[in-house]
Amino acid sequence: MLTDAQVESWLVEDIGHHDVTNHVPGETSGHLVAKEAGVVAGLDAARAVFDYLGVEFEALVPDGTRVEVGDTVFRVEGAARDVLRGERVAVNVVGHASGVATRTRQAVDAAREVDDTVRVACTRKTTPGLRGIEKRAVVAGGGDTHRLDLSHMVMVKDNHVAEMGLAAAVAHFRERVSFTTKVEVEVESPDDAPKAAAAGADVVLLDNMPPKNVEQGVLALPEDVLAEASGGITLDTVPDYAATGVDVVSMGSLTHSAPALDCSFRTGGD
Amino acid sequence: MLTDAQVESWLVEDIGHHDVTNHVPGETSGHLVAKEAGVVAGLDAARAVFDYLGVEFEALVPDGTRVEVGDTVFRVEGAARDVLRGERVAVNVVGHASGVATRTRQAVDAAREVDDTVRVACTRKTTPGLRGIEKRAVVAGGGDTHRLDLSHMVMVKDNHVAEMGLAAAVAHFRERVSFTTKVEVEVESPDDAPKAAAAGADVVLLDNMPPKNVEQGVLALPEDVLAEASGGITLDTVPDYAATGVDVVSMGSLTHSAPALDCSFRTGGD
Amino acid sequence: MLTDAQVESWLVEDIGHHDVTNHVPGETSGHLVAKEAGVVAGLDAARAVFDYLGVEFEALVPDGTRVEVGDTVFRVEGAARDVLRGERVAVNVVGHASGVATRTRQAVDAAREVDDTVRVACTRKTTPGLRGIEKRAVVAGGGDTHRLDLSHMVMVKDNHVAEMGLAAAVAHFRERVSFTTKVEVEVESPDDAPKAAAAGADVVLLDNMPPKNVEQGVLALPEDVLAEASGGITLDTVPDYAATGVDVVSMGSLTHSAPALDCSFRTGGD
Amino acid sequence: MLTDAQVESWLVEDIGHHDVTNHVPGETSGHLVAKEAGVVAGLDAARAVFDYLGVEFEALVPDGTRVEVGDTVFRVEGAARDVLRGERVAVNVVGHASGVATRTRQAVDAAREVDDTVRVACTRKTTPGLRGIEKRAVVAGGGDTHRLDLSHMVMVKDNHVAEMGLAAAVAHFRERVSFTTKVEVEVESPDDAPKAAAAGADVVLLDNMPPKNVEQGVLALPEDVLAEASGGITLDTVPDYAATGVDVVSMGSLTHSAPALDCSFRTGGD
Amino acid sequence: MLTDAQVESWLVEDIGHHDVTNHVPGETSGHLVAKEAGVVAGLDAARAVFDYLGVEFEALVPDGTRVEVGDTVFRVEGAARDVLRGERVAVNVVGHASGVATRTRQAVDAAREVDDTVRVACTRKTTPGLRGIEKRAVVAGGGDTHRLDLSHMVMVKDNHVAEMGLAAAVAHFRERVSFTTKVEVEVESPDDAPKAAAAGADVVLLDNMPPKNVEQGVLALPEDVLAEASGGITLDTVPDYAATGVDVVSMGSLTHSAPALDCSFRTGGD
Amino acid sequence: MLTDAQVESWLVEDIGHHDVTNHVPGETSGHLVAKEAGVVAGLDAARAVFDYLGVEFEALVPDGTRVEVGDTVFRVEGAARDVLRGERVAVNVVGHASGVATRTRQAVDAAREVDDTVRVACTRKTTPGLRGIEKRAVVAGGGDTHRLDLSHMVMVKDNHVAEMGLAAAVAHFRERVSFTTKVEVEVESPDDAPKAAAAGADVVLLDNMPPKNVEQGVLALPEDVLAEASGGITLDTVPDYAATGVDVVSMGSLTHSAPALDCSFRTGGD
Repeated sequence: MLTDAQVESWLVEDIGHHDVTNHVPGETSGHLVAKEAGVVAGLDAARAVFDYLGVEFEALVPDGTRVEVGDTVFRVEGAARDVLRGERVAVNVVGHASGVATRTRQAVDAAREVDDTVRVACTRKTTPGLRGIEKRAVVAGGGDTHRLDLSHMVMVKDNHVAEMGLAAAVAHFRERVSFTTKVEVEVESPDDAPKAAAAGADVVLLDNMPPKNVEQGVLALPEDVLAEASGGITLDTVPDYAATGVDVVSMGSLTHSAPALDCSFRTGGD
Repeated sequence: MLTDAQVESWLVEDIGHHDVTNHVPGETSGHLVAKEAGVVAGLDAARAVFDYLGVEFEALVPDGTRVEVGDTVFRVEGAARDVLRGERVAVNVVGHASGVATRTRQAVDAAREVDDTVRVACTRKTTPGLRGIEKRAVVAGGGDTHRLDLSHMVMVKDNHVAEMGLAAAVAHFRERVSFTTKVEVEVESPDDAPKAAAAGADVVLLDNMPPKNVEQGVLALPEDVLAEASGGITLDTVPDYAATGVDVVSMGSLTHSAPALDCSFRTGGD
Repeated sequence: MLTDAQVESWLVEDIGHHDVTNHVPGETSGHLVAKEAGVVAGLDAARAVFDYLGVEFEALVPDGTRVEVGDTVFRVEGAARDVLRGERVAVNVVGHASGVATRTRQAVDAAREVDDTVRVACTRKTTPGLRGIEKRAVVAGGGDTHRLDLSHMVMVKDNHVAEMGLAAAVAHFRERVSFTTKVEVEVESPDDAPKAAAAGADVVLLDNMPPKNVEQGVLALPEDVLAEASGGITLDTVPDYAATGVDVVSMGSLTHSAPALDCSFRTGGD
Repeated sequence: MLTDAQVESWLVEDIGHHDVTNHVPGETSGHLVAKEAGVVAGLDAARAVFDYLGVEFEALVPDGTRVEVGDTVFRVEGAARDVLRGERVAVNVVGHASGVATRTRQAVDAAREVDDTVRVACTRKTTPGLRGIEKRAVVAGGGDTHRLDLSHMVMVKDNHVAEMGLAAAVAHFRERVSFTTKVEVEVESPDDAPKAAAAGADVVLLDNMPPKNVEQGVLALPEDVLAEASGGITLDTVPDYAATGVDVVSMGSLTHSAPALDCSFRTGGD
Repeated sequence: MLTDAQVESWLVEDIGHHDVTNHVPGETSGHLVAKEAGVVAGLDAARAVFDYLGVEFEALVPDGTRVEVGDTVFRVEGAARDVLRGERVAVNVVGHASGVATRTRQAVDAAREVDDTVRVACTRKTTPGLRGIEKRAVVAGGGDTHRLDLSHMVMVKDNHVAEMGLAAAVAHFRERVSFTTKVEVEVESPDDAPKAAAAGADVVLLDNMPPKNVEQGVLALPEDVLAEASGGITLDTVPDYAATGVDVVSMGSLTHSAPALDCSFRTGGD
Repeated sequence: MLTDAQVESWLVEDIGHHDVTNHVPGETSGHLVAKEAGVVAGLDAARAVFDYLGVEFEALVPDGTRVEVGDTVFRVEGAARDVLRGERVAVNVVGHASGVATRTRQAVDAAREVDDTVRVACTRKTTPGLRGIEKRAVVAGGGDTHRLDLSHMVMVKDNHVAEMGLAAAVAHFRERVSFTTKVEVEVESPDDAPKAAAAGADVVLLDNMPPKNVEQGVLALPEDVLAEASGGITLDTVPDYAATGVDVVSMGSLTHSAPALDCSFRTGGD
C-alpha cells in the first residue's frame, strides 16, 4: 500500500523550502499524454500524489492498458499551484511504473509466442522504496510478482543446501514456516531438480542454466511441482526459456532496468 | 542526505513480518563483485544499510570509480543474519545508482570527445524517493546535477512567458528569489535566446531544438550567459549537441532509463 | 521487522516531555524475572528498545523457552537513566509477546495430545502495530503464523463465492496472483470442501462448523489439499477439532485475548 | 491523539504489497455487530482508519456504551475496496479497546458494590503503541487513567527512598517538577504511609499489601492525601481492596490482560 | 524525549540533496564557545545530533550553568564531514534553548529579589516541534514548566465557566480526569478566586489583572490552593507580580520571544 | 513544504494521551486577532493545522500584510473540539512566523531608508524544524532567504581557503557543483574581495567588518559580483551597512531572535 508518508517524502524532495515558480493563482487542469506506445501502470500512485495535494484526479484508462502515442492517460483539475507541484512527481512515478509494465509486456508477449501458459515473473531486484509499485506494474504488464518479500515464500538457496544437505534444508524450513507458505528450492544442476521435488519443494528454481539444461530439469520433475528458470534471461533469450516447458521464467531486468515510458504532462484544455 | 528512516523503509519492504531463511547463526562476511564493467555509485547508501544493521562495511573503491568484471566493490562483516538481510537491499541500491553513473559516464565521454568542457546534466526526472542518490550518482559518473529541487534555481517556462511576457517574467521571479539563486529561461526558438539574456537570465535553455538551432541560439548569447540544450537527447545524439558550443547538455534518461549495473553479492571469503 | 521508528514511538508515549524520576546519575544493571511459568517471546523487541537507548542487552534464553517462576529472562547494563527509561516499555512488550506464546503453547499442547502433527495457527486478528511481534510470538509458542498479511495468501471468502461461484472465484484469483502464493477457500458446509479442492484450492477452510462436520469435510478432501478448521475454537475445544484429522486449527484468541505473562524487572545485582 | 501515521502503519502491516482479494469494484456498506455483551471503546480509532481510506463512518453509540449480543456499533459506507481494506484493522482495534473497557467496567462494578466512590485505575502496563487508546478505553469503562506517562506525575519509588531517604526524596522531586504535577510516594508498609504524607506526598501508594494492611495505611493518612492500593489485584480481590477505604485501586491487568470483545463486521445491508 | 527522527529532520532540512563544501576528508575536533554571558541549555539535543552522525560529544558543563564570554560549552571529535554537518544544527538548537534558559533566569532572578519562593513558569506558547526542548530549557533557567500538554493538568477556562457555571465546570472535569491530574481554574476577577477554591481547584489562575488585584485574589485564597498570575507579564513587571504573594508567575515570552544566546562553533584545537 | 507529518507532530506534542477540556460538543467558529502591529506570516502553516483537523480556514489577509492592533488575520469554522485543539498550535506558529516577518520588515525599512535597492537577508541560523517556515516568513517581511540549505549555494569559508588557497578553493568547488549553483566566497579583509572575484566568485561575503571596511571591499569588486556584509549586524547598525553600497546585508537575528507577534485567538462571532 502506498502511504501518504511516502507521497509526502516525494513532494518534499522535489519542492524544497521555497519554490516560487509554482506560486500561480487560480485553477487549472492538466492531462498526461503518452509520447510513445506502451503499457500504463502506477496510476494509483499518481492519484495518491494529487489526492494529497487536494487536486481532482481521473484515470482515463486502467493500469495495464496499452496506449499509443498521443493517448491521454489521466486528467487532473484543481488549484494551479497544487497541480503544478504534483506534476513532476506524478509523471516520474507513472513513467517509471509504465516502463516496468511495458518491458514486462514485451517479455510476456515474447514468451507466450512460444508457450501460451508460461509465466514471466520479476524478482526481489526492485528499486528501494518502490517494491509495491513495481510489483503491481509487473502485474499490469501481464507478469507475475514472484515473492513479494522474504516472508512471502521460502527460497532454499545453495548456501542452505551446502550447510544442511538438500532434504534436511527443505525439512528445516518447512517446519519453520506456515502452512500458507510455499517452499522453493534453488538447484544448480538439472539432476538436483527431482531431488528437490522429492524433498518436498513446491517449486524448483533451475538457476543460471542454458535452456537445454532447464528442459532436462523440467522433464525430471513431477507434474505437481512448478519449475522456474532464472539467471541472466533477456528479452532475446526469453523465448528459448519459454520453449523448455518451464512454468515460470523470471527476469530481474523487468524492474531494475526498464527504461521509463515517455510521457508528457500538459496544463490547460486537452 | 539519506536517513535511517529511509533505510528502515527499504528493509521493511523486503523482509516482511516473518523471514526464516536468514535466521542463520554465527558471523559471516561478504563482498560485492561487479559482473559487468561500469562506474560505481551509491556506496554511501549501501554503507547506511549495513550500518543500520550493525554490520561493518568497507568500500574498496570510492563512488565514481570505473570497475571491470570481477572487481570487488565493498566488503562487509557481521552477524550472518544481518549480512543476509542487508544484502538484497544493498545490491539493489548500488546496482541502480551505478547504472545511473555508468550511463552518465557514457554520455559524458561521448560529449567530451567533441567538446572537452561541455557539461552533461540530469534533470528532475528522477525516481521518486531517490532524488539525492540519483543526483549524486550522476556526479559520480562525471555529470552535473542540474537543479536539485524546485527551490534551487528558478526555471522560467513557456507558460510564464505566455502569461507575463519574457522580460516581465524574468523580472517577476528575480524579485521573488534570493540573490543566491540563479534564473534560467526556457526558450522555444533561437531568436528568443538573446531576449532572455537581455532580460537577465543567468542560463538560457534551448528546448527541443535540432543541433543547428541550438548552435544558432548559442551564438546569439553573450559570453557570460550559460546555454543549455535539452529535450529528447540520447547517447547517440549527445555528440551533435556537444558540438554546438552549448555549455550544458541535459538528459532525463540518465536517471529515469539507465539499466542497473549487474553486481553480485557473495558471502564468505573473497 | 521491528524498526527504530517504532521503538521511538513506544518510548515517546511512555516518557513525555519532562521525566524527572529517571534522571539518576551513574550506571546500573537490571534483569527480567518471570513471576509465573510460561513461554518467553518478544526478546528481539526488548533488545531493540535497549539498543536504541545504548544499553547492553543479553538474552539468557531464546524466544520459545519455557520458564518457571523466578527464572531470569534477560539482563541489561548501562547508564541508570537509560536502563530505567527502557524498563517499562521492555517489560510491556515481553509480557505481551510471552503471553501470546504461552497461550499458543497451551493450545498446541492440548491439540498435540490428540494428534501429534496438527498445527495450531493464529489469524489476522492481531493487535494493531504488533502484527510481526505477535506472529513471531505464536511461532515461539509452537504455533503457525497463518498468513502474515492480505498479500501472503489468497483467501476466497463467501462473498466472492456468492458473487462469482466457487470454481470461477478460485480461477479468478489464481490468475491474479503469483505462482508463489497459495489459495485457500472458505467453505460453510462440508459438502463444499471437495468442490473447493476440485476448483484448485491449496487449502480449504472449514469455517464455523462443529467437529463432526469438520471431520466430514476432511474426509471428503484429497490428500494433497490441506484442511483448516476455524471459528470460535477455544482452549477447551481445540482437542475436539484436533481429533477430526484436520491439518490446521486456527484461533484468533491466541493473539487478541492472551493475558500477559507476569514478569518483573529488577535493577541492581541478580 | 491518534495520528494518520499510526493508522497508515496499521494498514500497511495488514495489506502488504499486492492484495488482490479486496480489489472489488463498486460501493458497499458494512456494520460492526457485537457478538458478546460488553462495553464499547476505540470508536475514534475505527473512525480514523475509515477516514484515512475515504470511507464514511458513523458511530451508532458512543464509547462507554454497554452493548448486548447483536447490537450494531458503527456503520460505514464507501468504495468496496476501501471498506474491505479497513475492516480487519478496525475490528482489531475496536475489539481490543472494547475488551479493555469491558474488563474495566467489571472491575469498577465489583469495586463500587462495596464502596461507591472508589476509583479503579489502570497503570503504565499498556500495549506498546496503544497507550492513548487503552487509557481512553479504561475511561470508557468507568476507570481512571492513572498517570498517562512518566512526565504526568512523579512516582517516588523504593529505590529513590533507599538512596535519599523518604523525606529527602519527596523534597528532591518536588523541587524539580512543576507546580502542576502531583507527587505520589510508594510505600511498602502501612507505617510508612503517614511519613510519606508528612513529607508532602499528594498520593500514597500502598504497594503489594494484603487488604488488612492497606486499611491500616489508609487510616494512618490525613484526609487530604489520597491513598492508592496496587499489586496483583484481580477481579476477585478488587472488592476486598475497595472495602479498605482506599481512594484508588489500580490493576495492570485492565490493559495488559483483557480479552478482546468479540465483534463481527458484516458487509451489505444491516 | 528527543527522537532520532526529529534529529534526522533537522539535518535533512539543512543539508539538502548534494552538499559539497563539507566533503572534507579526515578527522577533526570542534568546540562551542559562548560569545555572550547566559545560561546553557539544549545540550542533550546537541548530543543527539552528534550521536546520530557518529561524532563523539562531551558536554563541559551541564544544562543550567551560567557561562561567561569565552567559556567552552561542549567539545566534539570525529570525521570532519560529520562534525561540519552537525555544527550548524547543533549551534542553532543550543543557541535557541540557551536563549530560553537565559531569559528564564533573568525573570526568576528578578522575581526572587522580591519573593524568594515564587515560581516563574512558562506556558504552552512554545515553538511548534520544540515543546520538550523549550520546557527543559525553562527548567535549566530555574523556571517551572507549567503543564507540559493539554493532558497534564486541566485548565478550566472562562468559556467552560460561561457554559456550565464555575462549580459545575470544576466538578465536570474533576469527574473526567484521573486522580493524578490537578485542576486549575482561570478567573477574571479576584472575587472569583475563593469561589474557584471552594469548587475544588488545586490552582487558581488570576488572569490579566494588575498586581493589586492579584494580591487581592491571593489573600482571598485558602493556603492549600496555589495562586498563579498570568497575562502580559514582562521582565519589567515580574517583580511587581512576585510581590503580590502569588505562588507562580507565568510568562509566555520565556519561550516565544527569547533571543538566542550568541554562541560560536570553532573547529580544531581549543 | 510543510508536511502532514510535521503538523501531526505539533498536535501530538500539545495534546497528549487524554485531553478532556476540549471535548466540547457542537460546532464553533474562531478568529485570530493581532494584539500588536506587525507583519503577518505563517498562514499556510496555520491552514495546514486546521486542514489536518478538518476545520475550515480562511485567511483574511495574505502573508506579508502589515496589520494593526485589532485586525483579524484568519477565521476558522468547524467542530468545536477540533477548533480548540488546533488553536494553540496555530497561534504559536503564526505568532512565531509573524515575529520573524515583523523583525525583517523593520530591518528592511531601516536599510531602505539609506539605500533603496539593498537586500536584507537571513542566514542558516534558523530554529530546527522550521527552516522553510522561517525562510518564507523572511520573504513575507520583505527580506531575502539567502541560501535555503547547504546544497543551494556553495559558501567557500576561511577553513577552505586556509587549506587550499583562495583561487584553488573556488576552482575546487566550481568543478564539483552544478552550473545551476552560485559560489560565494567569505573574506576576512577587504583586500581579499577582488581576489575572490578574480577567482570566480559570484558573491563575496565581507565577514565581520566595520562598515568602513565593507565599503572598501565593495569598491574593490567588479560590478557583476555581488557583495554581502554579515556578522553581528543589528537593527541599529543595519543602516550603516546599507550605506556602504553593499548588495546584501544579512542578519542571523531575523530568524533566531525575533520576538513573537502578539496574537489572540477568539472563539465565537467576531
